[in-house]
Amino acid sequence: MADLEEIGYAAAINLLSAIAFLLAFAILRLQPFNDRVYFPKWYLKGIRGSPTRARAFVSKFVNLDCSTYIRFLNWMPAALKMPEPELIDHAGLDSVVYIRIYLLGLKIFVPIAILAFSVLVPVNWTGGLLENSKDKDLTYSDIDKLSISNIPSGSKRFFAHLTMLYAFTFWTFFVMYMEYKAVTNMRLRFLASESRRPDQFTVLVRNVPPDPDESVSEHVEHFFCVNHPEQYLTHQVVYNANKLANLVAKKKSLQNWLTYYQNKYERNPSVKPTTKTGFMGLVGRTVDAIDYYNGEISKLNEQEAAERRRVLSDPKSVIPAAFVSFRSRWGAAVCARTQQARNPTIWLTERAPEPRDVYWENLAIPYVELTIRRLLMAVALFFLTFFFIIPIAFVQSLANIESIEKVFPFLKPIIQRETVSSLIQGFLPGIALKIFLIILPTLLMTMSKIEGFASLSSLDRRSASKYHLFLLVNVFLGSIITGTALQQLKSFLNQSATEIPKTVGVSIPMKATFFMSYTMVDGWAGIAAEILRLVPLIIFHLKNAFLVKTDQDREQAMDPGSIDFATSEPRIQLYFLLGLVYAAVTPLLLPFVIVFFAFSYVVFRHQIINVYDQKYESGAAFWPDVHKRLLVGLIIAQLLMLGLLSTKDAEQMTPPLIALPILTIWFHKYCKGRFESAFVQCPLQEAMVRDTLERATEPNLDLKAYLQNAYVHPVFKDDEEERRPVVVDEEESNPLVKTKRNSRSSSNRTSALASEGEAGFRE
Amino acid sequence: MADLEEIGYAAAINLLSAIAFLLAFAILRLQPFNDRVYFPKWYLKGIRGSPTRARAFVSKFVNLDCSTYIRFLNWMPAALKMPEPELIDHAGLDSVVYIRIYLLGLKIFVPIAILAFSVLVPVNWTGGLLENSKDKDLTYSDIDKLSISNIPSGSKRFFAHLTMLYAFTFWTFFVMYMEYKAVTNMRLRFLASESRRPDQFTVLVRNVPPDPDESVSEHVEHFFCVNHPEQYLTHQVVYNANKLANLVAKKKSLQNWLTYYQNKYERNPSVKPTTKTGFMGLVGRTVDAIDYYNGEISKLNEQEAAERRRVLSDPKSVIPAAFVSFRSRWGAAVCARTQQARNPTIWLTERAPEPRDVYWENLAIPYVELTIRRLLMAVALFFLTFFFIIPIAFVQSLANIESIEKVFPFLKPIIQRETVSSLIQGFLPGIALKIFLIILPTLLMTMSKIEGFASLSSLDRRSASKYHLFLLVNVFLGSIITGTALQQLKSFLNQSATEIPKTVGVSIPMKATFFMSYTMVDGWAGIAAEILRLVPLIIFHLKNAFLVKTDQDREQAMDPGSIDFATSEPRIQLYFLLGLVYAAVTPLLLPFVIVFFAFSYVVFRHQIINVYDQKYESGAAFWPDVHKRLLVGLIIAQLLMLGLLSTKDAEQMTPPLIALPILTIWFHKYCKGRFESAFVQCPLQEAMVRDTLERATEPNLDLKAYLQNAYVHPVFKDDEEERRPVVVDEEESNPLVKTKRNSRSSSNRTSALASEGEAGFRE
Repeated sequence: MADLEEIGYAAAINLLSAIAFLLAFAILRLQPFNDRVYFPKWYLKGIRGSPTRARAFVSKFVNLDCSTYIRFLNWMPAALKMPEPELIDHAGLDSVVYIRIYLLGLKIFVPIAILAFSVLVPVNWTGGLLENSKDKDLTYSDIDKLSISNIPSGSKRFFAHLTMLYAFTFWTFFVMYMEYKAVTNMRLRFLASESRRPDQFTVLVRNVPPDPDESVSEHVEHFFCVNHPEQYLTHQVVYNANKLANLVAKKKSLQNWLTYYQNKYERNPSVKPTTKTGFMGLVGRTVDAIDYYNGEISKLNEQEAAERRRVLSDPKSVIPAAFVSFRSRWGAAVCARTQQARNPTIWLTERAPEPRDVYWENLAIPYVELTIRRLLMAVALFFLTFFFIIPIAFVQSLANIESIEKVFPFLKPIIQRETVSSLIQGFLPGIALKIFLIILPTLLMTMSKIEGFASLSSLDRRSASKYHLFLLVNVFLGSIITGTALQQLKSFLNQSATEIPKTVGVSIPMKATFFMSYTMVDGWAGIAAEILRLVPLIIFHLKNAFLVKTDQDREQAMDPGSIDFATSEPRIQLYFLLGLVYAAVTPLLLPFVIVFFAFSYVVFRHQIINVYDQKYESGAAFWPDVHKRLLVGLIIAQLLMLGLLSTKDAEQMTPPLIALPILTIWFHKYCKGRFESAFVQCPLQEAMVRDTLERATEPNLDLKAYLQNAYVHPVFKDDEEERRPVVVDEEESNPLVKTKRNSRSSSNRTSALASEGEAGFRE
Repeated sequence: MADLEEIGYAAAINLLSAIAFLLAFAILRLQPFNDRVYFPKWYLKGIRGSPTRARAFVSKFVNLDCSTYIRFLNWMPAALKMPEPELIDHAGLDSVVYIRIYLLGLKIFVPIAILAFSVLVPVNWTGGLLENSKDKDLTYSDIDKLSISNIPSGSKRFFAHLTMLYAFTFWTFFVMYMEYKAVTNMRLRFLASESRRPDQFTVLVRNVPPDPDESVSEHVEHFFCVNHPEQYLTHQVVYNANKLANLVAKKKSLQNWLTYYQNKYERNPSVKPTTKTGFMGLVGRTVDAIDYYNGEISKLNEQEAAERRRVLSDPKSVIPAAFVSFRSRWGAAVCARTQQARNPTIWLTERAPEPRDVYWENLAIPYVELTIRRLLMAVALFFLTFFFIIPIAFVQSLANIESIEKVFPFLKPIIQRETVSSLIQGFLPGIALKIFLIILPTLLMTMSKIEGFASLSSLDRRSASKYHLFLLVNVFLGSIITGTALQQLKSFLNQSATEIPKTVGVSIPMKATFFMSYTMVDGWAGIAAEILRLVPLIIFHLKNAFLVKTDQDREQAMDPGSIDFATSEPRIQLYFLLGLVYAAVTPLLLPFVIVFFAFSYVVFRHQIINVYDQKYESGAAFWPDVHKRLLVGLIIAQLLMLGLLSTKDAEQMTPPLIALPILTIWFHKYCKGRFESAFVQCPLQEAMVRDTLERATEPNLDLKAYLQNAYVHPVFKDDEEERRPVVVDEEESNPLVKTKRNSRSSSNRTSALASEGEAGFRE
């Protein structure tokens, strides 16, 4: 077991490496040719122009102003400076509430740490079990002396831990309650202050029943004309445009190749670039590349036009779903919350997601199929969580040198060299697991898509809860009880309900140092890597070199990315869990967690200001999930403490400890009742206020025209298809708020941001 | 263990006693002076007149027509004759759907029994484990030979049980699905065919926030005028009339005494009855009873009038809740389903219960208090279920002869006689438990009332689920694993998740004979007692003798009773559970369960036709609960089978067996999504159709006048308070549908019923 000193060294090393990352970031971000990697948000806002325009040639690419390098941490105060309301304006509520999760971590754990260090550390240190132990072979470290392990069984000192556990729990309740309240108010304020948006007036109707005499469109219109006579305004049917979207995507890829060859030709006009017509340009007849791609593109153009005509004219390409718009927000809120037809599985209504948030592929799934899909995915998730190790072990058993030689005999001479072979043998066993962990979020997202959710935001939330389960079982429990999840499952099934918390609880203090290292390596270093954006940096420069001709192309090459809620949030939850579990057991872990939260907060605040461009805006709809998972962590911490104490002959503490999880569940229910509806429903009072206001201020508004084309599949929307990515999953600019790309104009509202952005750039 | 023959004897004895009950019933019900006990429903309908009017003196009281006694089972076909639609008209949907639960039992278990007897009984009988056993001491009965106990471990024969379990499960799914569908359709048809009722237009609003400037009534009016401008019609505030209700109840009791003494005086005019003014008429000054009570009543009349004025004028007696009525059913449906205010804990709306279904005391509970109450009641229910034996054991330890002598020394000479003392000693230990079990439903109902539900029907449903839990733990599990629930809880906590089904599963076959006897004693005999109505019979005749002067009084003395959903339904569930658990283990139990269901069906059908008068009509709102609890039983059966088979070396069957509970949970979710909303929501389509129809047929309807006084606390409603019971819990006649008591007129619609009722009476 590691000593205090060892952990100190490890912390120092990790801190140094984090600083190295930060230095690299400081240097890279100041180079103008990286500007679009580190400040894409400002380009998208149209406030920041291309740096390559107005400067001397060298300073277009390299920043020669040495003074800017000295203040390499300057971005930190800059990131913290922007006030929250402005930040909401700038980056959206989702991002702002997301970084509040880190802040919540600080709010919870800083006071807990102070309390724990002032009460529990002295109590533990003077516990004296380890020093007085007669077992001379017993090795223990200073960390163990600081933890609950140092208290002898049946000691009265456990009352300190019990009291502290109550204090921690109630403090956590208090902070979480205040936070839920604050986020709820932010959401309501945000929704109230928003400008007019189509989704406020629109309801997504799924499972429109087939009608022998009417088309889907007519059927929808008649149904809503009858059942919402005063409110119904218009509707838009949904076309099944998957094939068309594929064609558009294919064309885009061909166009990239065309640009690549054109660039090549321009740079070296003496050689006409050629390509082969077969698979991936590797086999087949050699042809002139530019002519070939031009031809292919024009062929595709024709196909696309034909398909477009077919989709729009063929009644079979209309799926049984529609976006129905109402005359007022009140009407839409009413329709979204009520049951329309006798049969509750048809005419299903829900609030329409934002147009850019719609996941078009899932709109047409019938009810029975949906329930079967959910069942299958629930079973699949169970197997994925507990049995994922089986296929990986199988792959690992295949991935040895002999089988590689068998499959690729031509590699034999290389592999058989000793250095290579030992490298492969050391490397291969881990690689299957690594690959699995990398594709896991995509896998979970695919599973969520199969479950049939209709918006990107709900897909993200759903994937996050799956990932949370996976991390809980395989990282947290898996690290405490060594062994695969499968073995854990087996042992849990064979242990009694009171035995499980004991088994886990007893191992908790022993794993403290492991989790400290984990926090440093995964947490600190992960965040430092986040700010460096190495992958987008490389990709941008590759694209820049080969595919960029105009400034427009350069903007296309820019990948601002976005907060990946589905993977980041469950990871944060892991640190919450660690903090809550160890707060009363080994308080020494708390500073590590606090550093993680503080560092992450600053980094992500910087990122949402300068980099990320959210794919959608859900108005912090994820908060109830965050809250729930945090309470799950709290309950786990309480149960493990219960198990731990019951092995320490402190049975008289069991009743007060059992009360804690019950209180926590009650707290959850209370908060759910008190706040959750703000994230699900739209209060009619609110809707009515806004409707009345609008009617008074804009009596002549033509709402029908405004809503007419709001919900059109993205492939139908643009005249300039080549500029737009078509697969909805990819980044999509908001089609409603006109972007001001490449324009230097800045409105009053954004001037403050702009000047700050410029400041960040100039330093 | 009992042999087949013994069980046969027991069955014969129980059948004979049931037949004795039926004979007693047949004789009693034919006596005209019992007519109001056995046919109160017809009196309430106004179709049956008093039999004491038109006959010879003797035949007013005793039926002398011998031929009617011979056909003593004639009521059975009569009970089955009335077709279902007519029955719904006559007794309401709640009652009709309630007896369908018994029918559902038959539909599920008759085919299962046929299958089990044709497949499993031969398989078990030839299993040969018990006969071939070398252990000569092993005693076994024929019942064991017919059960799964007779199959040797690891036998291939278990595949028959597995297949049958699948067949039973899918058959149950099928029947339950069809039944849910049928009940849903019945409910929707019932709601659609109902005449206009105030609750269709009305929404119950709770937690009206306090306003410094406006009264509750003004505040409600303004809020709904603003937020539902086109739909809001009127509203009624709720007064806190508990004190007034107490006064009215007190007056009623005094009036009963007055009547009693007046009757006494009339029968014996020579002696003026006297009473004493003190406690219960036992101590104090002796006065003329009739004068005394007349004086007391007039005093109370004054108090009541003063209180009535106070309640109506004092703004503090208005509680923050109101019944808000809308112009159309559509408007009410919309308001009930949507959130009104930003803060989801104020302006809570729900569909108003029927006026007679309102539980007035619970309308004013604020949100926070409500959540705390629910938490406390959940904890209380847990302790009640698992620890109820502790206070009972304590009371039992007190209830011995010595302590009785100490408290009531004057009883000493009686108690010390040997026969009395031995009687008491044999009787006392059990009495505490008996009393507890008798008051348990009331206790559970009180707990539900504390939880703050606003309608009698929801209170009933809530109590039923509590009682179901209690029966499941203390009767079913308690009988299988002997020992108190507390000991069970302990052993369950100390056993692993896989161990628990094994422990219970192994004991299952051994308890088959016990549950057969239980079904006969509790089930068969209980139903036979139900039809005899011994308690109402005695009470009616007591009241008739002392309190009845006029025909009106006689009607008051009549207690038709009603189906007590909160206690009867959980008991039915117990038989479902037994049937499902033993279907694959000891099929011999099935005939007993089937007899119970068949007998109950006939008896309850007779009762709802001739006796019961429902307190409210919820439109079968309880069906989702029934469905859910049935599926809980199915899952328990599957898990126990899993445990049982895993002790029989049939591990290869575990995977297909595990799939069953997962499928069952999925089936539950599917049915919930498919049907449940019909029991919770009101489809807008439906509401719109009825609104439109009504507008076309009755264009001049004054809805406001119709709704004006629909939701008035019962104490304010009647001019003739003395005739109405005031405590809402008690029977209440529907104040909207004019009853035709004592009138011989019969409409076309009821003539068929009337003639049948008369036939039943004449036979």
